Parts: sequence; structure tokens; C-alpha cells
Amino acid sequence: MKAAQFFGKGDIRVVDVPRPDPKDTEVLIDIEWCGICGSDLHEYIQGPMTIPRKERPHAITKEHFPVTMGHEFCGRVSKAPSGSNLSPGQVVMVDPRIYCGSCTRCNAESTNACHSWGFKGLSGSGGGFSEAVAIDAKLCYPLPDSVDVALAALIEPLAVAWHAVELCNVSDWSTQSTLIVGGGPVGIAHIFVLRAKGCKQIYVSEPTSLRAEQNRQLADEVFNPLITNVAEKCRELTGGEGVDVVFDCAGIQKGMDAGMAALRYKGLYMNVAGWETPMVVPQYHLLLKELTLKASMAYDDKHFAETVNAFVAGKFEGVEKMVTSRIYIDDISKKGFDELVTNKDQHIKIMVTTHKDKV
Amino acid sequence: MKAAQFFGKGDIRVVDVPRPDPKDTEVLIDIEWCGICGSDLHEYIQGPMTIPRKERPHAITKEHFPVTMGHEFCGRVSKAPSGSNLSPGQVVMVDPRIYCGSCTRCNAESTNACHSWGFKGLSGSGGGFSEAVAIDAKLCYPLPDSVDVALAALIEPLAVAWHAVELCNVSDWSTQSTLIVGGGPVGIAHIFVLRAKGCKQIYVSEPTSLRAEQNRQLADEVFNPLITNVAEKCRELTGGEGVDVVFDCAGIQKGMDAGMAALRYKGLYMNVAGWETPMVVPQYHLLLKELTLKASMAYDDKHFAETVNAFVAGKFEGVEKMVTSRIYIDDISKKGFDELVTNKDQHIKIMVTTHKDKV
Repeated sequence: MKAAQFFGKGDIRVVDVPRPDPKDTEVLIDIEWCGICGSDLHEYIQGPMTIPRKERPHAITKEHFPVTMGHEFCGRVSKAPSGSNLSPGQVVMVDPRIYCGSCTRCNAESTNACHSWGFKGLSGSGGGFSEAVAIDAKLCYPLPDSVDVALAALIEPLAVAWHAVELCNVSDWSTQSTLIVGGGPVGIAHIFVLRAKGCKQIYVSEPTSLRAEQNRQLADEVFNPLITNVAEKCRELTGGEGVDVVFDCAGIQKGMDAGMAALRYKGLYMNVAGWETPMVVPQYHLLLKELTLKASMAYDDKHFAETVNAFVAGKFEGVEKMVTSRIYIDDISKKGFDELVTNKDQHIKIMVTTHKDKV
Repeated sequence: MKAAQFFGKGDIRVVDVPRPDPKDTEVLIDIEWCGICGSDLHEYIQGPMTIPRKERPHAITKEHFPVTMGHEFCGRVSKAPSGSNLSPGQVVMVDPRIYCGSCTRCNAESTNACHSWGFKGLSGSGGGFSEAVAIDAKLCYPLPDSVDVALAALIEPLAVAWHAVELCNVSDWSTQSTLIVGGGPVGIAHIFVLRAKGCKQIYVSEPTSLRAEQNRQLADEVFNPLITNVAEKCRELTGGEGVDVVFDCAGIQKGMDAGMAALRYKGLYMNVAGWETPMVVPQYHLLLKELTLKASMAYDDKHFAETVNAFVAGKFEGVEKMVTSRIYIDDISKKGFDELVTNKDQHIKIMVTTHKDKV
């Protein structure tokens, strides 16, 4: 079958690989759609990073690159283990995580921090940029017919935002003001999740005009940090105090400096970004405002399930706006990865399929 | 009367100043003892920092240097406003903070973050390195005869630690393992507070042998980070998981790197230190362990009162070990500040008095 594999930095090839052979507990899934994630792009530009090298194969899959990429995917059951509640034809969303299930963190239900964590699509054992994948039945979430299968793969990036928003421990988002630093795909996923949770004050800091335009359709205010003092604007909009929570979806120093300046006393700075430079915390704000800095990493079982439920319940109104291009797998390098490198700001999410008739 | 005033970096002079004239709501206090704080030392070495300059007087006191120093002090009431519950001769501990009492933060009972915060002894309106001070009656905490007036000034640095420990929001410290980075006066104050709250696993990272020796009498384990892998030791002592809470009482990069490495998954890093270099957060630990970084700033009314109560109740057993020298005010430069510069590690707290018969 066709699979887009990572062979090294800037080198993704569509190759022919054997169709997966599911184990007794596994479901064979024909993939419908798989989104290209920012972390896929990082691998393409700078990798291998999370993708395991030959000298250090993944602890669970024992694989190293070339590996099939793609971890934001949904599909249809092609073969289900006996005794599972799944049957052929059923549309499912897949939790693509790999975890051991037996370490102290997995036992504490923090499977996202498993000592051997990984992802299908990065760490081996197949991935979403292919025709099919074999995956543990417990990681498959059946979706009702009411869900548009062309959008369901968005559940994965939404789950990343859901987890970060949940980690804030806010009981009533309708009372909270928020600033999202960076209006890319992760930032936009946060807008959808915050709206679903009733947040009424969502501000975004985004320097590029194309991205700002996308965000303007969803957020309450969008600031260009190159020409606007974002902290000052946030204080103006919050009675002089500053916002309650900042989500860092950019991972750049100037964003953190402005974001911490924008926070109110005892505000929360939630980092969701991967940084490519050192993260220097502005001490003046941290100390004098007794701020809290937290970090969020992927999602756990509970938050993935909650995101699926919210998606099924139609809580992410307008989420179709996140898909800016749909491409066939053969075009994944040029119209997928290269397009994101060259015209990053024109896109939120590019969806890939192996079904030529769907693009 | 005598007062030790800051005239500039490295220039503290004992000068003659008018005895304060208390306002109607103020108590006149004859000072018994006043400790030299690390922040006083910072002013001496690098100041003026918090101490206001001529071009920017303090918002509330309207004063600038020269100002009388010393903010860790207790004394005896010499004159009390009518209607107060204080009478001449009463020993009191003083909350030395200056705050406006009317800004949004003061109204939210976060007087430590008042938009115009300051301290007697740093920001003008007198200080503890003098014979007397006039201070609002509500900032005076009467102490019973059972309290040793020669030790009561320690309540102030203990309140700093109390506030930081309270900000951790831990309900039962007896279940928590802790690492204190930096075994100086602030670190040692944390040991006393954590012990008072029932903590049974207190580890300290301290590189100098003299300080390590002091800490060894109080903490459960003391590591020398120059020869020991502190994170590894902490994991060994906590079943492989790492400590629950780290208190940064050092403010140096290597301390934070080791401290974050020593934390368990979802652990808390509480910064109590003032840093002289950029604070670079080790992202690897922050993100993969979903850590929380918080900062603590002085103390508020509630936590100061709680510290006074705990001190009166004898909760800080062995606290007399914190006092390593007692000096007369005339010797404050040589035997106080210069001694702390030259032989810092030999001291925890140097206490100063204007009563020559007491040293």
C-alpha cells in the first residue's frame, strides 16, 4: 500500500509498504483523512527530532526512520477484533499515541507522559499518511453518521488545545479573559476549544496579516504585535488589570515577553509551544505579579475522549474553517510540506488522503 | 537618634536623624533588634535597586535615598494611639510593608503586590537600623512575654518562606518531598516553615561546606551540587519519581536546571529568589513533565499574621540557630555588611541593635 515516509530532513517519499497485519487486539483501519501537523513540519525542516534514529530506536515500537508519518487521522474500520464494539465500515477517530500502559505515569493515568511515549506517525508502527493502519481497539473512538468524516481528523489538534485548556483548572471560562500568542493552527484550535467552553474574551496576538485575517473571524480581537503594544491593549480591555490566562502557541521570546506583560496579577501563562530558542522568563513580571507558568504536553485519555464527545456534540462551530487545503498523498511533498514551508501563513490545516476521488 | 542610612552603593553611614513623630494612627516603637536581609546586602553591593533614587521617589513615602535601612525588626511600644490595643512597654513584631491600601490589588487582599509596594527600611519612612520608628498600629503584632525578643525579628524572613510555602497550595505537607536550592538564610527559613507544617522529606542543595554544615543540622539530606547529581539523588530518595516541590532560594541557572531535573512529573518549582542573570527555563523538563513554575513575592497580611502565630506557638523549634552574630549599630558596616560580603557563608542572620548593653 501507499505510505508517505520520512527518510530524513526535507526528504519525504511516497513508497510502497506492506499492508499492516493487525494483532488480536488491534483494529485494521482504512484511513480517510490525515492532517499535517506543525510537529510533522518541524521534522521535515529540522528532523529527525521526535522521529527515532537508527542508533536509538523507539522503546516500544523498536523502529527508527524511515517511518510512516501522520498522526492526525480518522478512518473506517476494515477489520475488527472479535469481542470489540467495532464493525467493518464504522467511522472512527484514532488516538494516535503510543504508551506502555504500565509505567508509573501510565498507572497514574498520565499516559501522555509515559516514560516511553510516542505517536503513530512519528515513532513507527505506521501512520496516517498511508492507506491503512493497525491500532489497538481501545484507541479507536466510533463516530456517529452525523459527523463529517472529512473534518473528524481535526479532533486531534483540538485535543491538544483541550488538554491545555483543562490544565488551567478554570471552573468557569465565561468569566475569564484570554490572550493567545500565535494565531497558527494550534492557536486557532485554542479559540475553538475556549469558545466551546464559554469563554467570551479571546484575544490573539499574530503578526502576519493572512493569519490575522483568519483569526479575526473567530476571536474577539486580533493584535499585530509588530505595531501594537499587546500588553497595553489587553489591560485596556480588562479594566486595567490584564488578562487571566495566556496560551503560548508561538514559542518565541518576544511573544512570552508581551504575554507575561499582558497577564494580570496571579495570572497563568500556559505554554503549548515547542521552542527552538531558549525560553527566558521575564522575571520582573513573574515575580512582581506572582505569575504561574505551566506547560501542556499533547493530551491524555480523558481529554481525548472529551474532545471527541465535544466534536460529536457540535461544540466546535465553524471548525471547517480550519481546513485550507485537501491533497492527494502523491502530492504530499510539493502541495503539503513544501507548501507549508513556502506559504505557511495561507494555511491552517492541510488534509491528506489516499483516496484520489476525494480531492 | 542614631540611624544607619544608605547613601549609595557600598556606603552605609550611621547618622543622627530626628526621632520620628507618630501620626494619630501610628505607634512609636523603640527598636530592639533588626536583622540584615539578603536584599539589604544586594542594595549595599549593587544598589540602589529597590531603594528609590532622587529622580524617582517612592510613590507613597515620596522619599529617596539616603533612607534608613532595615526591615526585619521588632521593638517595644513607646507611644500608642488612643483606642489601640497597644500600651507602652508592649513587645511587638512589625510588618514592615508599605502599601496604599486602596488599589485593586490591595482591595483584593494582595497587599504584597500593591501597585505602590515598598518596605520601611528600603523605601523611606524610617527603618529598623535605628532607635525608633513610627508605624501604623495595624502593622504591629503584640507578642506575649513567652517570646524571646532577641529572636522575634526572625518572624520577618520566616514570613517570606511561609508565603512561598502557602502559595504551593499543598494540603498535607507530611506527604510531600521537597528540595531547597540554596541553603542560605531564605533556604533555611524554608526548612523551619516546612518542618512547622509537617514536611518529612526536606533536601537541600548547597555548594559551600559551611552552609552545608548549617543545613545538615536541620534538613534530612544536604547535597553538594558541585560533586553530586542532585536530580539523581532526589529520584533515589523518592522511589524514582523525583521530588514534589522545589524551592529556589538561590536564583542561579545551574540551580534551576538541577531543580527542574529533580522534580517529579507535574511537580512545582517555586521561585523565591531574586535573580541577577536571565532565568532560562529548561524546556525539556517543563514540557515533558508538565511542570509548574510559580513565583512568591514577600508576604501578605494573612501570611504574616499566621507566621507570627506560629512563632508565638513555638512551631519553629531551634530557630535560634539562625542568628549567627549580634552587633551594635555603630559596627553595622564593618561587622554587618562587610562581614556578610567577606564571610557570607559563615552567617545566616546578623542581628543589629542600638542598645549597646545587649551585644
